[in-house]
Amino acid sequence: MNKGYIQYEELFSYTKKVLEKLGYPNAQADITAWTLVEADARGVPSHGVSRLPFYESNIKSGFVVPKEEPEIVYETPLSLVVDGHNGVGPHIAKFSMTRAIEKAKNAGAGFAAVRNSSHFGMAALWAEMAPAQGYIGMAFTNTRICSIVTFGRERILGTNPICFAIPTSGKTPFVLDMATTTTAHGKVEVYERHKKPMPIGWCVDENGKDTSDVIAFQNLYRTSRFGGHLFLGGAGEELGGHKGYGLGLFVDLMCAGLSMGTWSRDTFTKTGGCAVANFFGAIRTDLFGNASEIAQHVEWILQEVRQSAKSEGHDRIYIHGEKELEKRVESLATGVPLDEVEWKMLDEYAAKFGFEKISTGRI
Amino acid sequence: MNKGYIQYEELFSYTKKVLEKLGYPNAQADITAWTLVEADARGVPSHGVSRLPFYESNIKSGFVVPKEEPEIVYETPLSLVVDGHNGVGPHIAKFSMTRAIEKAKNAGAGFAAVRNSSHFGMAALWAEMAPAQGYIGMAFTNTRICSIVTFGRERILGTNPICFAIPTSGKTPFVLDMATTTTAHGKVEVYERHKKPMPIGWCVDENGKDTSDVIAFQNLYRTSRFGGHLFLGGAGEELGGHKGYGLGLFVDLMCAGLSMGTWSRDTFTKTGGCAVANFFGAIRTDLFGNASEIAQHVEWILQEVRQSAKSEGHDRIYIHGEKELEKRVESLATGVPLDEVEWKMLDEYAAKFGFEKISTGRI
Repeated sequence: MNKGYIQYEELFSYTKKVLEKLGYPNAQADITAWTLVEADARGVPSHGVSRLPFYESNIKSGFVVPKEEPEIVYETPLSLVVDGHNGVGPHIAKFSMTRAIEKAKNAGAGFAAVRNSSHFGMAALWAEMAPAQGYIGMAFTNTRICSIVTFGRERILGTNPICFAIPTSGKTPFVLDMATTTTAHGKVEVYERHKKPMPIGWCVDENGKDTSDVIAFQNLYRTSRFGGHLFLGGAGEELGGHKGYGLGLFVDLMCAGLSMGTWSRDTFTKTGGCAVANFFGAIRTDLFGNASEIAQHVEWILQEVRQSAKSEGHDRIYIHGEKELEKRVESLATGVPLDEVEWKMLDEYAAKFGFEKISTGRI
Repeated sequence: MNKGYIQYEELFSYTKKVLEKLGYPNAQADITAWTLVEADARGVPSHGVSRLPFYESNIKSGFVVPKEEPEIVYETPLSLVVDGHNGVGPHIAKFSMTRAIEKAKNAGAGFAAVRNSSHFGMAALWAEMAPAQGYIGMAFTNTRICSIVTFGRERILGTNPICFAIPTSGKTPFVLDMATTTTAHGKVEVYERHKKPMPIGWCVDENGKDTSDVIAFQNLYRTSRFGGHLFLGGAGEELGGHKGYGLGLFVDLMCAGLSMGTWSRDTFTKTGGCAVANFFGAIRTDLFGNASEIAQHVEWILQEVRQSAKSEGHDRIYIHGEKELEKRVESLATGVPLDEVEWKMLDEYAAKFGFEKISTGRI
């Protein structure tokens, strides 16, 4: 695969232009383009510009209505409930998390439950708005169905990521941004392209049994509602699959439950739209004493973890979030990496909308 | 194994009597006995009366000083920081969670960060104090070291459980109470007794490599600081081990970080005592609208999950917490189950302290 690099700003303005052509108003296009380019810059291409065709198809299906604005339907000094009216996910996420942080600034903690949103990109982008203010951040979302609960066989939950972000006195905050499922569907597709058996613990078949047969699994996944992704810990209880399932369900209850919104199973319907639900939170660390001393204590713990003994064949222990933020620094210096498929997709949008192909930014 | 049953009240009063003989003041003995008997009644014997010798040895080692009272060292309308002075864990947990809930009652949300506590028993017991008031509850704790971080080989974190509890309109709240490690050490000991190979994904050896050799592992575990338990998702990243490690580390940062306390690695030392750290939280659900409608919506989602299609060989999908609370109902009706080892231990305390052996309560 030819891998090319493109300047961050160039990719951003091109992506924004495409989104505007897809019907995104300026503010929505701006925040969404930022979300996508940040993901590519951080080495998380599953949430990068490769999502553009998915966003386009969501509009065509009537799942997302880009011009809709989020509405606050309930509010207290510590909290708000937002109806996103199936507008643009990153726009709704920024709106909601900004207000949760304002409430934390005034009251000590702030929480937002959101219904009727759409794909908001990397959860980390919203959670880490809190440590940027010195606060603890949370961002959860339910998603389109893909996963199987313990002792189940029907896809009823999503990847349901949770993200917790904690301020440190070091270079980067602690940012745990994780799908509660074992792996992303993109990784299954890689195994499909290479016709390689998948690891046991990723997926189960239509009977809820472990499977490594990626071809059979993908056929099933495309044509039936049975078989799907496993939560962290895999099938059954021996490796803790019931715990991963619990985390995924917790996310749905915090998002759809508190917002009186739609749970994963019922998202993406003709009548209801995307209708994904989110939960955001911000908690001031000076609720617990001197914020700067706490940040130093947190960083000291992380430093001790980094310096602990490494396993055979490894010379580094990572703290959550630092890999992505180091990659971002690299991408800003040397360009954002895009693969052949992504270039092709971007060039096709140029042809479709009568743009110049990106050229100046190609590195 | 002869399994016997004992009346709940009988086991409670006997356990309390033992704790008083071990030096626990009345209030500390009362809440600790309740904690232990509740665990046995709920079918979680790892946190039941079998802990008595562990509690005794903690006192003898000077890790726990039963008469110490928790002290509030910092406080805001939403939060408190507690120094437990290495007193009795359940006593400190009840003290802290009670105050977090009071703060939630008055302010909407309440949080407690605790340092210098000791083993507090099942996390669920503290988190579920919140749904009993209609609130969301959280209880996290770090623990004595046992676990290995991704790409590490040295035990530096604990089992670091997290518990989230959410009120429902059904018979039981949603209570996710999970060690962030894959499995409890008690399960490793069962494999050791039966000389059976452990499942891959539970533990790694001194080089940080997967192992199923339970005998070699246990020798290592008893004599060195290398090799130990894996977090949910196992070794490496393929099955998401970095996510489980992230959850375990998150717990340590919320507990030890926010309380300026001791992180897992440095707990249980001659100079510092047990010094485990906790985090408790309570959030009112009426921050998000009508609490009763929200509880009904949550219960409806759970009901849909219960009724979804089952995998081959299974006829029930569990919601987190219901297995334990159903077992509790059974134990209250027919007695709390104790195994031979537990009976023997209880009888030995009778001999040691000159009590009557339990007899009336044996069913």
